[in-house]
Amino acid sequence: MSLIILGSVAFDALETPFGKTDKIVGGAASYAALAASYLYKDVKIVGVVGEDFGESNLSKFTKRNIDISGIQIKTGEKSFFWSGRYHNDMNTRDTLVTELNVLGSFDPIIPSNYQDAQYILLGNLSPQVQITALKRLKKRPKLTVLDTMNFWMDIALDDLKKVLKEVDVLAINDEEARQLSGQYALVRAAEEILNMGPKYLIIKKGEHGALLFGEGKIFSAPALPLAEVFDPTGAGDTFAGGFIGYLAKRDIVDFQHMKSAIIYGSALASFCVEKFGTERIENLQDEDIAARINQFSALTAFDI
Amino acid sequence: MSLIILGSVAFDALETPFGKTDKIVGGAASYAALAASYLYKDVKIVGVVGEDFGESNLSKFTKRNIDISGIQIKTGEKSFFWSGRYHNDMNTRDTLVTELNVLGSFDPIIPSNYQDAQYILLGNLSPQVQITALKRLKKRPKLTVLDTMNFWMDIALDDLKKVLKEVDVLAINDEEARQLSGQYALVRAAEEILNMGPKYLIIKKGEHGALLFGEGKIFSAPALPLAEVFDPTGAGDTFAGGFIGYLAKRDIVDFQHMKSAIIYGSALASFCVEKFGTERIENLQDEDIAARINQFSALTAFDI
Repeated sequence: MSLIILGSVAFDALETPFGKTDKIVGGAASYAALAASYLYKDVKIVGVVGEDFGESNLSKFTKRNIDISGIQIKTGEKSFFWSGRYHNDMNTRDTLVTELNVLGSFDPIIPSNYQDAQYILLGNLSPQVQITALKRLKKRPKLTVLDTMNFWMDIALDDLKKVLKEVDVLAINDEEARQLSGQYALVRAAEEILNMGPKYLIIKKGEHGALLFGEGKIFSAPALPLAEVFDPTGAGDTFAGGFIGYLAKRDIVDFQHMKSAIIYGSALASFCVEKFGTERIENLQDEDIAARINQFSALTAFDI
Repeated sequence: MSLIILGSVAFDALETPFGKTDKIVGGAASYAALAASYLYKDVKIVGVVGEDFGESNLSKFTKRNIDISGIQIKTGEKSFFWSGRYHNDMNTRDTLVTELNVLGSFDPIIPSNYQDAQYILLGNLSPQVQITALKRLKKRPKLTVLDTMNFWMDIALDDLKKVLKEVDVLAINDEEARQLSGQYALVRAAEEILNMGPKYLIIKKGEHGALLFGEGKIFSAPALPLAEVFDPTGAGDTFAGGFIGYLAKRDIVDFQHMKSAIIYGSALASFCVEKFGTERIENLQDEDIAARINQFSALTAFDI
């Protein structure tokens, strides 16, 4: 049994009010796989990089015992590169550069030792690539989680709707839920979206936490109120990785366990934003994670 | 022992995407007192109305056993009147009409039978009137809660800062917390504001719930995800009334009880928005309130 994380493995260059970086490791699969690796022991990436990515960057994954045999390395080509600048509120950003490079022709190959996967996260990527990856799995996994964004709703909505029919859980933010459903109230948006295929919907609300809809129930998870968000890049991917990593570890897929999975995902995301890129989630201690989970409990407990 | 609610008792005319009203009962004290009356038996209003307000409108309070001997009735004058139109998102609104009328010269009189009050809510009003009311209490209450808004930060900041030094709890929304503190991150905003006088700060975030800061702790309360907000007018006042009503009933003032008080305030506010004006909170059943409180528990409970 294993957990597959499909998504970009890439370079980012970031500017925030706190500073800027050169090219550092980024990409949805990078964040999600690192996050999942703290909760589950058999995490496998499917992705593609160029020759420029290099051994030392790949070792960030192998150090965490993440299987990278599904990462294709394209000789003579360059890795996907994104550069962005965050505004002072840290909630909005401008894209400065997007170079698709190897991602433009990405054909996701599932190695044979990945075929026992019971859990798969379709990280943010073109819906066409997500569909292809799913088709190449010989056995339908126990749980398929889809992370996507408004960009794909704008340019590939039909393909996205095809993916939606094949997944168990969709994770998007509140604006994206409104865009996808055409409904303003999130309860109504969730009703519409759950009719499109997924059995569960997670609506990520950034500093306001997250909502889980499914089985006719709703769960409201808080975000940890943070004094400082140093770099929000990858927080959503980290959340998704923590979410599916927790479920793979527990190996029970129901509303109750998804509630806990959201708390674990949120806790890991709260570390992610403390430093640039993947830096903070490359070296977490189990005690740090446990302490943060306890903070979430203290934050929400009340007597009636 | 009793609970004093100071604030406007007024007429509103409202337009929402769902319809519009003629002049109906509005005002911070109206909402807050009605809400508090479901949790505590001895609620007393301090306010002022014109001759136009009329017996039948005052009876909305007396039916709920609310003491109105502190509501001055100004012969030959008119009640405060506000008219507004909500946008489709129900989060923003335009003011169409504001007629101060009796509120322009409001001199809050505390009847002698109010002087045993242990709890007081300084509802949204000019800081000068709030200070005057506090000064006219012969004994400092056990708990003073202040509700205010950006309007007073814009035009009467110095007076507002004087009130802040005299209160135990401040309730404002997230944008107001940022304006008052000059800090964007709410954790930092709370630190600044708690240095201005209040021992506790509630930050109301509308559909995203509320945060409570104090005693070095943070509590995050959810809002009930609603399919329909019919009319948001008075939700914040209802919240504040429910909050202080619960504390007056329990008669214990600490962080733990304030957490529960926020849940009760939120539950009452979730009823308020279901109909125009005060209509829904004029006739609540205890069972309805209990059921809604249970919904809040179910919404946030998780195992770790």
